[in-house]
Amino acid sequence: MLSPKEIVDTMIAKDFFSQWLGIEVLEANEGGSKLKMTIREDMLNGFGIAHGGITYSFADSALAFASNSHGQKSVSVETSISHAISLKASDTIIAEAKEEHCSNKIGIYSVKVYKEVDQSVVALFKGTVYRTSKVW
Amino acid sequence: MLSPKEIVDTMIAKDFFSQWLGIEVLEANEGGSKLKMTIREDMLNGFGIAHGGITYSFADSALAFASNSHGQKSVSVETSISHAISLKASDTIIAEAKEEHCSNKIGIYSVKVYKEVDQSVVALFKGTVYRTSKVW
Amino acid sequence: MLSPKEIVDTMIAKDFFSQWLGIEVLEANEGGSKLKMTIREDMLNGFGIAHGGITYSFADSALAFASNSHGQKSVSVETSISHAISLKASDTIIAEAKEEHCSNKIGIYSVKVYKEVDQSVVALFKGTVYRTSKVW
Amino acid sequence: MLSPKEIVDTMIAKDFFSQWLGIEVLEANEGGSKLKMTIREDMLNGFGIAHGGITYSFADSALAFASNSHGQKSVSVETSISHAISLKASDTIIAEAKEEHCSNKIGIYSVKVYKEVDQSVVALFKGTVYRTSKVW
Repeated sequence: MLSPKEIVDTMIAKDFFSQWLGIEVLEANEGGSKLKMTIREDMLNGFGIAHGGITYSFADSALAFASNSHGQKSVSVETSISHAISLKASDTIIAEAKEEHCSNKIGIYSVKVYKEVDQSVVALFKGTVYRTSKVW
Repeated sequence: MLSPKEIVDTMIAKDFFSQWLGIEVLEANEGGSKLKMTIREDMLNGFGIAHGGITYSFADSALAFASNSHGQKSVSVETSISHAISLKASDTIIAEAKEEHCSNKIGIYSVKVYKEVDQSVVALFKGTVYRTSKVW
Repeated sequence: MLSPKEIVDTMIAKDFFSQWLGIEVLEANEGGSKLKMTIREDMLNGFGIAHGGITYSFADSALAFASNSHGQKSVSVETSISHAISLKASDTIIAEAKEEHCSNKIGIYSVKVYKEVDQSVVALFKGTVYRTSKVW
Repeated sequence: MLSPKEIVDTMIAKDFFSQWLGIEVLEANEGGSKLKMTIREDMLNGFGIAHGGITYSFADSALAFASNSHGQKSVSVETSISHAISLKASDTIIAEAKEEHCSNKIGIYSVKVYKEVDQSVVALFKGTVYRTSKVW
């Protein structure tokens, strides 16, 4: 059976979009993950700030890594995100995913995204996953 | 005063991430927008399907264009997305944003993302924006 | 096998909270439902308007009736609601639930709540259900 | 200027629905609140478990008390809830609201609902409020 770290390594090796985002895995454990990335010019929207989809994608990757860590393949079914502050190019952000509930079929996770420099909250994300019967 | 089409053209000209996604604007009108894009290999996750953040980002751009169309700058405050089916490379998808409510300060939008080929629903997105006092 | 109408009748007969709300079933069909209720004084909050939980509960009942209509017992896993306008005592509201997606295990529904008098949107609700293997 | 406790006392005195729910305020402070209630027979749905709207309403009251605690009247604009486990009559539950972000116009809150007996998570709620310019 694979460890959480091995599962995340396997996932990210083929996760081309997380690679494009420049996501670095700081921690991967049972039910949790901690990631880091830095905003680039090509991630900005028409307001000159990071597109909301960038922060969402970052949090969604943290959810994927945390929810698959038990060895059972899990897919996101519904997620929501609240945006607190905007980000500019060169801002470095951290995502921390935490398992709030895990039953046979359903898992619930909260992900906090914050700036590395002063820990100010960038976004709050909540996601529910469906835990399939397939294993990593 | 700019037309919805002129506002969206202005927004997308500087929206580097929507450009990376390859978003094409099919329609832009007061309170609504219709977009198109095609999934590429570099948008896939560790499962070999489109990363959830890609569908979200696409819907979020549709929300941004629809909610800014009245000429008042609007920013997303909370959004949620439900994923119905997964996408593979070369799938072409459409996003249609619809204004459900618009008051002085708050706007509510639903966005449906579906496959171009058979109109099957890919994701259902709902978003609330805060309408600032700044104009385009 | 029970019809959608028979399933909803069975559900509401024991649904004491929907009874307390005074919910009336206008329509019940495969994947959809249409309900009606009227705001009372004991449903108001400290602002003198209907508590957000009243509108949510009304939409959640519409979701439950719509998602169980196929005969397979279904439970809500994640839902979100956007509040558009406030309600006062004696306002009559309608909820219309619509199935947006239905697969073996997961169903996605949107519910629109609006005032009967002028059809103005009160709230927009989106919900994802897990479809169990038990039948009505 | 009123204290958080005085604001919540003022709110709940007229909050007839929170009274019907039997909500007891355990704590009220700047940006946070802690509430308690017990499930009754008339709060059950057709499955014989607490209606999803009960847990939502409880969390929504916690949000309202926490977000109004600064003295500025605040209204919920979008909220979402993930249901983890079901509740039966006589179960006692606790809601803890925590402020995750607070700016001039927008506040973001997470609310955890758990069983008093063993602290198992019942639901995870996230809400965004619009902070009006009116004061308590």
